[in-house]
Amino acid sequence: MTNCDTANDGFHDECGVFGVLDHPEASNLTYLGLYAQQHRGQESAGIVSYDGDQFINRRGMGMVADIFQKKDIKRLSGRLAIGHVRYSTSGESGLRNCQPFSYEYAHGGIAMCHNGNIVNARVLRRELEENGSIFQSTSDTEVLIHLVAKSSSDTTEGRLKEAVSRLEGGFSFLVLTEDKLIGLRDRNGIRPLVLGQLDGVWVLASETCAFDLIGANYVRDVEPGEMVVIRKTGLESHKLLDNPSLRFCVFEYVYFSRPDSTLEGVNVYQARYGIGEQLADESPIDADMVIPVPDSGVPPAMGFAARSGIPLQMGLIRNHYVGRTFIEPRQSIRNFGVKLKLNANAAMIRGKRVILVDDSIVRGTTSRKIVEMVRAAGASEIHLRISSPPTRHSCFYGIDTPSDNELIANRMTQDEMCSAIGADSLAFVSRDGLYRAIKRPCSVHCDACFSGEYPVPIEGLERKNPPSLLRFNSKKR
Amino acid sequence: MTNCDTANDGFHDECGVFGVLDHPEASNLTYLGLYAQQHRGQESAGIVSYDGDQFINRRGMGMVADIFQKKDIKRLSGRLAIGHVRYSTSGESGLRNCQPFSYEYAHGGIAMCHNGNIVNARVLRRELEENGSIFQSTSDTEVLIHLVAKSSSDTTEGRLKEAVSRLEGGFSFLVLTEDKLIGLRDRNGIRPLVLGQLDGVWVLASETCAFDLIGANYVRDVEPGEMVVIRKTGLESHKLLDNPSLRFCVFEYVYFSRPDSTLEGVNVYQARYGIGEQLADESPIDADMVIPVPDSGVPPAMGFAARSGIPLQMGLIRNHYVGRTFIEPRQSIRNFGVKLKLNANAAMIRGKRVILVDDSIVRGTTSRKIVEMVRAAGASEIHLRISSPPTRHSCFYGIDTPSDNELIANRMTQDEMCSAIGADSLAFVSRDGLYRAIKRPCSVHCDACFSGEYPVPIEGLERKNPPSLLRFNSKKR
Amino acid sequence: MTNCDTANDGFHDECGVFGVLDHPEASNLTYLGLYAQQHRGQESAGIVSYDGDQFINRRGMGMVADIFQKKDIKRLSGRLAIGHVRYSTSGESGLRNCQPFSYEYAHGGIAMCHNGNIVNARVLRRELEENGSIFQSTSDTEVLIHLVAKSSSDTTEGRLKEAVSRLEGGFSFLVLTEDKLIGLRDRNGIRPLVLGQLDGVWVLASETCAFDLIGANYVRDVEPGEMVVIRKTGLESHKLLDNPSLRFCVFEYVYFSRPDSTLEGVNVYQARYGIGEQLADESPIDADMVIPVPDSGVPPAMGFAARSGIPLQMGLIRNHYVGRTFIEPRQSIRNFGVKLKLNANAAMIRGKRVILVDDSIVRGTTSRKIVEMVRAAGASEIHLRISSPPTRHSCFYGIDTPSDNELIANRMTQDEMCSAIGADSLAFVSRDGLYRAIKRPCSVHCDACFSGEYPVPIEGLERKNPPSLLRFNSKKR
Amino acid sequence: MTNCDTANDGFHDECGVFGVLDHPEASNLTYLGLYAQQHRGQESAGIVSYDGDQFINRRGMGMVADIFQKKDIKRLSGRLAIGHVRYSTSGESGLRNCQPFSYEYAHGGIAMCHNGNIVNARVLRRELEENGSIFQSTSDTEVLIHLVAKSSSDTTEGRLKEAVSRLEGGFSFLVLTEDKLIGLRDRNGIRPLVLGQLDGVWVLASETCAFDLIGANYVRDVEPGEMVVIRKTGLESHKLLDNPSLRFCVFEYVYFSRPDSTLEGVNVYQARYGIGEQLADESPIDADMVIPVPDSGVPPAMGFAARSGIPLQMGLIRNHYVGRTFIEPRQSIRNFGVKLKLNANAAMIRGKRVILVDDSIVRGTTSRKIVEMVRAAGASEIHLRISSPPTRHSCFYGIDTPSDNELIANRMTQDEMCSAIGADSLAFVSRDGLYRAIKRPCSVHCDACFSGEYPVPIEGLERKNPPSLLRFNSKKR
Repeated sequence: MTNCDTANDGFHDECGVFGVLDHPEASNLTYLGLYAQQHRGQESAGIVSYDGDQFINRRGMGMVADIFQKKDIKRLSGRLAIGHVRYSTSGESGLRNCQPFSYEYAHGGIAMCHNGNIVNARVLRRELEENGSIFQSTSDTEVLIHLVAKSSSDTTEGRLKEAVSRLEGGFSFLVLTEDKLIGLRDRNGIRPLVLGQLDGVWVLASETCAFDLIGANYVRDVEPGEMVVIRKTGLESHKLLDNPSLRFCVFEYVYFSRPDSTLEGVNVYQARYGIGEQLADESPIDADMVIPVPDSGVPPAMGFAARSGIPLQMGLIRNHYVGRTFIEPRQSIRNFGVKLKLNANAAMIRGKRVILVDDSIVRGTTSRKIVEMVRAAGASEIHLRISSPPTRHSCFYGIDTPSDNELIANRMTQDEMCSAIGADSLAFVSRDGLYRAIKRPCSVHCDACFSGEYPVPIEGLERKNPPSLLRFNSKKR
Repeated sequence: MTNCDTANDGFHDECGVFGVLDHPEASNLTYLGLYAQQHRGQESAGIVSYDGDQFINRRGMGMVADIFQKKDIKRLSGRLAIGHVRYSTSGESGLRNCQPFSYEYAHGGIAMCHNGNIVNARVLRRELEENGSIFQSTSDTEVLIHLVAKSSSDTTEGRLKEAVSRLEGGFSFLVLTEDKLIGLRDRNGIRPLVLGQLDGVWVLASETCAFDLIGANYVRDVEPGEMVVIRKTGLESHKLLDNPSLRFCVFEYVYFSRPDSTLEGVNVYQARYGIGEQLADESPIDADMVIPVPDSGVPPAMGFAARSGIPLQMGLIRNHYVGRTFIEPRQSIRNFGVKLKLNANAAMIRGKRVILVDDSIVRGTTSRKIVEMVRAAGASEIHLRISSPPTRHSCFYGIDTPSDNELIANRMTQDEMCSAIGADSLAFVSRDGLYRAIKRPCSVHCDACFSGEYPVPIEGLERKNPPSLLRFNSKKR
Repeated sequence: MTNCDTANDGFHDECGVFGVLDHPEASNLTYLGLYAQQHRGQESAGIVSYDGDQFINRRGMGMVADIFQKKDIKRLSGRLAIGHVRYSTSGESGLRNCQPFSYEYAHGGIAMCHNGNIVNARVLRRELEENGSIFQSTSDTEVLIHLVAKSSSDTTEGRLKEAVSRLEGGFSFLVLTEDKLIGLRDRNGIRPLVLGQLDGVWVLASETCAFDLIGANYVRDVEPGEMVVIRKTGLESHKLLDNPSLRFCVFEYVYFSRPDSTLEGVNVYQARYGIGEQLADESPIDADMVIPVPDSGVPPAMGFAARSGIPLQMGLIRNHYVGRTFIEPRQSIRNFGVKLKLNANAAMIRGKRVILVDDSIVRGTTSRKIVEMVRAAGASEIHLRISSPPTRHSCFYGIDTPSDNELIANRMTQDEMCSAIGADSLAFVSRDGLYRAIKRPCSVHCDACFSGEYPVPIEGLERKNPPSLLRFNSKKR
Repeated sequence: MTNCDTANDGFHDECGVFGVLDHPEASNLTYLGLYAQQHRGQESAGIVSYDGDQFINRRGMGMVADIFQKKDIKRLSGRLAIGHVRYSTSGESGLRNCQPFSYEYAHGGIAMCHNGNIVNARVLRRELEENGSIFQSTSDTEVLIHLVAKSSSDTTEGRLKEAVSRLEGGFSFLVLTEDKLIGLRDRNGIRPLVLGQLDGVWVLASETCAFDLIGANYVRDVEPGEMVVIRKTGLESHKLLDNPSLRFCVFEYVYFSRPDSTLEGVNVYQARYGIGEQLADESPIDADMVIPVPDSGVPPAMGFAARSGIPLQMGLIRNHYVGRTFIEPRQSIRNFGVKLKLNANAAMIRGKRVILVDDSIVRGTTSRKIVEMVRAAGASEIHLRISSPPTRHSCFYGIDTPSDNELIANRMTQDEMCSAIGADSLAFVSRDGLYRAIKRPCSVHCDACFSGEYPVPIEGLERKNPPSLLRFNSKKR
């Protein structure tokens, strides 16, 4: 899947989080930590800091570098802060769903944000509503805050433990109180959360690339089912959930994470490169050149080219100056959506047999347009190689996939797909090959989107937001 | 008090509300109803409509005509809507306190806004927090919605009745559900709420001037302690609170309301004109001209001039193009703040004995500046006449007065005030004279700001927002 | 004419200018000087300062207080500045016509702005174009700068003298060079320009109210045909044009200027009040009250009421919170445009015989709507009294009047007008009465809009911008 | 040179132009043509269309996709349009220098924009000023329009020919009149200009990638010294300048143009790839991996890796979500500027001998920071290979290079540079090798930045804008 199909096709990016405690420039570091994780969500961003007296909040629609001005960072004073970038996965869009949320309750102020999805959020919300709770957003985070507020435990840790034990799903939460920064991960560690240090101060992020930018050192991944509680006096680890068992999302390696991040001990770039090599071994083909579909197709294409000995060429050029919206002429341009972001370099391609390497096929529409564009640029043969197994199942743990029946791999055989997309041949890396390339056992991963093996029960769920959660439609300015 | 002192001195405007049910252009009428009541609050405005499927929300900082564009009104579709203009009285400023609020709870969606102040809001909020409620704003309205959600009654009316019975203070609420528009007023009817009809459709507003703009007919004032429930099938009146007893805010006549509104049977302009006549009877003085301090000083100045036979002259000219902020030169200009809004016409005033008529004196600083300006324009004598009794007490029912010890009338005798302000003589209308001019008994009014007789108990209250309600400071864009 | 008809009817405001030399806060004073003259133009504003090294420019669409932020004023550094507020009279709207213009030419930088209209601008422009000049705006100012640049004189004064001698019309110009502030007025002094001092520093403005705000003293009006050249070393007066002969625009007294300004020795408020008295003498009528049409109808209504002994009442209430645009319901509201700005206070008016006093009747449509509104509020009789003679002719000297055939007084007798407007009686002040009230001879005024006696020849002119000047339509952001 | 140094170091992008005549969606195509050429300038953009009656103009600061909304494109109606994207090369920044310019002159309206630099602009401007011309911008385009307006020729073509014959430099102009679209190129064709067709309609652009997006076919490059005049009736070619002799800017291949463009018969990507191969032949080195500095270093790195047999790895990851400004912590982060845009993937690099391939070294500061970052990520050896000869001379033909003495290659030997940058070895492609790779003779190129051989005389020039052109500093909103 290429970046150019976010509007029409496929998986969307998830969310990214960042937190820091006891640093004089907490909000500035958070801003940079979010900036480095912008690829995890471009719809909205927010930061909450605590200045010793009050919680300060700034949220907005758009990109980190546009939302936060110098004066905002200055206003977000204090030595504690958490932040969030978001691409809506549950909860419709709009400012009122922007995280972090900050609330006041019996025990003071509390701010929260999360990455992932709570599969029993609807059930919990109904139960809360029946007991008199009111909801202003459609975000899962609001459900957790209500559960925390209702807990009778007399510590924040106890209240969180009690509340989180009610949640099912794949999620990583950051929580900020007047004197604590807390990070926690679901019992299967489906979504990432990493711990680092900067000049003796603890930082939490979704990906290690956030640490690189601010010069922090990676220390370790937060464990599945673990809650780390960070105070000025140091870090405590709590066992939050019973029976932890790592099932880390394998799609983080295939597509989501930045290639320079290392998650659960595996460098993302190296994983992708290795999958490309594996793919060359599994599905070799004679051709004149290997062309990556930028950007996530680049590392596997490099691995494929290196292993196969077929020259790598950048036959698809990405336009880096992509804005939000484009005005299409009435007299429509063929494959307009794809062309705005990619252009086939005909001078390179004309008359050549090309191997296109992409990361995934979701609905298939983007792949078809890219193949068409390369064909129009004069390629004599087009062989499509995909660096993940066929995507056959929806994700319920924080990745915005279409429902099962919209997934092309669910509706067609591989031959039918090849023909629908218009390629001369089509091959996916095998599930076994994928894990061989990553050099990690299948058992520590969630690959439900390929295998249908959901580590957390999802019965009764439909993927899309239920109508009852969509009673509101607000757009504040 | 003149309009030019809102930043430095005195009472601030309250809030205004508007609601309509079963009209095809519900949000457009609400927009106009708010526009006509803009004088009741210029800090923020909002509208919520219900389109048969979902609640739609638009709130923003600033003026009605700036916040709502054609596309916003179009998006706010549906046949039911409520709206609000606000000048913060409780709850710090910021978008998260903008009304109306819309929430989802066990019985569906609900939207609310109000004008006034709940004096026991802090107590109720603490109690709610102790029972696990979370708060996102510092607005009284959020307290009421929580109470409604916690009620075990099985009708909206029952839940509101139960919830409102917990509230003490001066308040008028509008409530919108999927099929009902509800208006209610505290047991003393301290804040206004009027009922009208437009082509057979019910409308509710704070002031009748909202009806004039949209061409609706005034029907009656909502009664103290009454709840009117409006459905497509018609209007029902419910007794909401026991022992209702009208104590309407007399300051609505003196300053707040628009002169073309009629509230509780009294036209505001006529009330002001009459007070001016009364003032001329009570405190006559020989002079060359009567000069009003625009704008609320104009009607009493006219009454004073007519009764005294002294010519009325517009010796103070108002600048109508007033923006939000002004850039003052470093080398400060004398009485800059007042001069930006008013200018003394020296050609008229030079060498003359003038009677200045203003509506009230709060801290006294603005009055002093105006007197100085008129003196600098060459007046030989300045006699200040005030169309209300001395303001000696804070308001706890929705009007933003300073605390008692900042009120000049609380710290000085009338002679001391006259000298502090720099006038040659100073007189206030008497309390009895005020009611004689309005032609209504003192007993149906709240005049706590003059008399200290608070109809609703206020023990334990300080006027300003308690620090515990100020834990958050958010500014979304 | 009331302010509420700017969109539909009548004269528009002209422009206002301000300049200061050798003051450390030149741009801040200019900002305030424009703010005080905002009534002369609300479409755009601009300031140019010279910081000793370069000319700095800030222009924008909208109101002074919105266009200029603190950082703009800071950037506009230097001890010299000129500024402009504009309501387009010639030149279509848009940022590229915003003044002041700043250009670079053989003798350095030069900035200019003006108030008024050059009647031979088209002819001069064609001539310049034929000699190779290019034009970016449609403003008269650009014509003058071209003429200055083409002059062979070796002083700015000489170039201006040569250039201005080519111009015909009614105009006041401000010119800024690296070391000079120059003000000049056409040979008839049709448009105002006043000279003041602030702490020994010279200031120029269109109206004296600008001086009042900044605390400057009025010194004198610039003479017809005079050019004042202000340097650090002092002021020099030059005779710019031959045969000067004052013909000051009488409409400045009737409508344009702020009542607290004094122009050519006459205070505007006093002039209006006097016209009201004169009107009462000329066209008395028995009635219950005199009601002004706010705002420019207020002083003559006061004079009328005082002279006639009939009580003055504010029966029309102005909404002060008027924005740029309003969203009208599809199901249109009767007299919507007028109602947004004025409301008739029915409680006052019902059953009463009223005298309405307004300043002028242009197309008649607004007058008709106001009469309708007052009638609907229950007035039993409506007598309209106008504080100027009938407007029968277009203005070619800087006031945006409709063309002759759109003027109601040009198409109808007074009786027909009365009937078209729906009043019970209608009277205008006489031309003689007007001058009697102002206490100045007719001979020193231009009243072409009433009399058709144009002091500057206008043959061959049509009032509206000729199509050839409208080749461009730019809107920069 | 990498993209991350635009603020601190090196060459800036030039400008890009686009024009179309006789298409119903002229402005929409122009918008897309500019969007595809956004890499040629991100500071401002503008479009002028002619709707049969008037010229319509929209210019703004920022990116194409942000400046133009649907309503702007709709307003820019008509069948003719030209557009421009700009990174300031001469003329300070600011809206008043945004192109295209549109003016009115004796022969109607005319709009123009250009890419490049006129080396005798100052001389011509002075001469024009001495003859009475006035200037509002500091752009070269304004000089040409003045010359055109002064011409006595009676055709646009004649006037342009006469005017352009006065210009010296490297420039491509687009000109729009009421019925013509004209493209012209300096006598050496230093800057690119290509001609295409879309459904029988002519289009002009700086690069062929603009044609690819809109589906137009490339026809040919406009010739050096040629003027193409496009009317509804067809295209005419005129010889504009004597002694044409192609000297196309070789830096367009090295850095400026998009890799998918083909200019003067050479595909940019292929040129870059070939230079990388050549560099591997000329300066081989043993290492573990070849790492490109994204983005323009990618094709030569691919060529280098393919030729040398050393694996290509993406060891530097680019952050694609780069905003305008970043808020740096007070406690500064090492190599912050570079890190915001690039991150070294330590997992790949640690302990490895790496070859870094970049396109050029200008001041050397960015190269030093990148080398430091790669070293900090653990590289054991760093060999820097540059796909252009050392940059020793400023460009005077439209590329914003620093002055000679700021160029590191001008101040140091190659060994000193290597040591200053901190690399273990450093090599540049040779000048001969460069042309061998491009497969074109040196004689048809301008490579003054490497060789100092300026095809157009530049005596008396300093590179930076002379102070006399900076008298204005305007920022309209």
